[in-house]
Amino acid sequence: MDSLRILLTNDDGIHAMGLCALYEALFSKGFHVDVVAPDSERSAVGHAITLSDPIKIKEVYRLGDRFGWAINGTPADCVKIAVNALLEARPNVVVSGINRGSNTGINILYSGTVSAATEAAILGIPSIAVSVDSFSDQDYCFAAFFVSELVSRLVKYEDSCKSLNVNIPAIPAHLIRGVKLVRQCNSPFKERFEKRVDPRGNIYYWQCSSDFDWEKAKGTDIYWLKKGYITVTPIKFDLTDEQCLEETSILLSDILS
Amino acid sequence: MDSLRILLTNDDGIHAMGLCALYEALFSKGFHVDVVAPDSERSAVGHAITLSDPIKIKEVYRLGDRFGWAINGTPADCVKIAVNALLEARPNVVVSGINRGSNTGINILYSGTVSAATEAAILGIPSIAVSVDSFSDQDYCFAAFFVSELVSRLVKYEDSCKSLNVNIPAIPAHLIRGVKLVRQCNSPFKERFEKRVDPRGNIYYWQCSSDFDWEKAKGTDIYWLKKGYITVTPIKFDLTDEQCLEETSILLSDILS
Repeated sequence: MDSLRILLTNDDGIHAMGLCALYEALFSKGFHVDVVAPDSERSAVGHAITLSDPIKIKEVYRLGDRFGWAINGTPADCVKIAVNALLEARPNVVVSGINRGSNTGINILYSGTVSAATEAAILGIPSIAVSVDSFSDQDYCFAAFFVSELVSRLVKYEDSCKSLNVNIPAIPAHLIRGVKLVRQCNSPFKERFEKRVDPRGNIYYWQCSSDFDWEKAKGTDIYWLKKGYITVTPIKFDLTDEQCLEETSILLSDILS
Repeated sequence: MDSLRILLTNDDGIHAMGLCALYEALFSKGFHVDVVAPDSERSAVGHAITLSDPIKIKEVYRLGDRFGWAINGTPADCVKIAVNALLEARPNVVVSGINRGSNTGINILYSGTVSAATEAAILGIPSIAVSVDSFSDQDYCFAAFFVSELVSRLVKYEDSCKSLNVNIPAIPAHLIRGVKLVRQCNSPFKERFEKRVDPRGNIYYWQCSSDFDWEKAKGTDIYWLKKGYITVTPIKFDLTDEQCLEETSILLSDILS
């Protein structure tokens, strides 16, 4: 049997430690790994795509070997161009990460890492987005090992969910308390914009790290990650609000036809 | 009673005709309208936000009157900074548009217009994203009138859905066949990347307009819009895939704790 084909991408850029750790883990498991990732960091780009500009590609080498393609585009662009133009064969699984910093709660919507996995799901390819809960680089070995195990399971269960968002606590592996299958937390962060004036008298703002009501997070991805568990959330790309369909029908009752 | 406060934004930029038409329609209905919009086009940026760069703001005037703020950020940034820093009072409704070009099906995920409405919903403010199905500017009068009517309904029904995605056919108003409450179409577009070589021998690609399997769109937003109906889809920001929770639980059964 041909080995499993994995497309590996991220939003921290092709040279990020998290991506390299994941490459090693997947490669050493015998998978065929193609890397197509942004040429530099593209965090918080959400599901942006590049339509008005050309997408440049560049082959990247490591230690003399071809490592992958660097793209001047977003994580979603990487998946699209990989599948539609660059790869010899369609990947069996797309893995996005390992991201520096968690992607939980509302932040999933802003995440380039998660959007790459979502883009794969749109194209009908099972996918995993993976993030470690620290903004400084870590020893990614355990996280990479966990994902490589998850990839094997994902392809074994053909009926299984198309896209998984995985977050891993930034603590030594033996202190991780387990794995929780959880929902996305929907509580907003309390945000703050810091106002400043530049040397020419122009006003500008910095979007600041935000406060959060931890009570509201109970039982969600944010809660269990902070408790020391790996969290797994199946995600989808149908934004239709089922529960609101009926309410909206009442609201529009005299104009619907 | 104080007049209703509307925050108006878009992704085509503060000078776009669609936004101006909407401003006129909402203002002439007696609403208080605040405009906070990108300083230039930010299409296909999805739910991107600006964290690594400062956000500059600039007051914009029209015919000698203050019109609003232009921001060097994304549509989602506009809503965040408006609500958290710029506006005197919290808006009752956020309206995003009128966008040049429809936002239906999978394209909702790439849309800056829809992301602004979603951002409002995250902050607990009812919202409407509105797009007209043409990439060239139109007479936006009818679309603007329709949205101003919808705003009045949205605030009347307090229990109603938080966020509506509205698409309007680019045909004369008397030819519009009605209004349909519909689901987002989940079929992918068939995409094509056109390969080119620059004068220095570097390869680049253009992401091209894509083909689509119309049969799969039946009954969805894409289908009814093409049939000449206004489409309304309630949208949400919880990406948890309910239906996959159980399947994923089986997949992870021996490692869940």
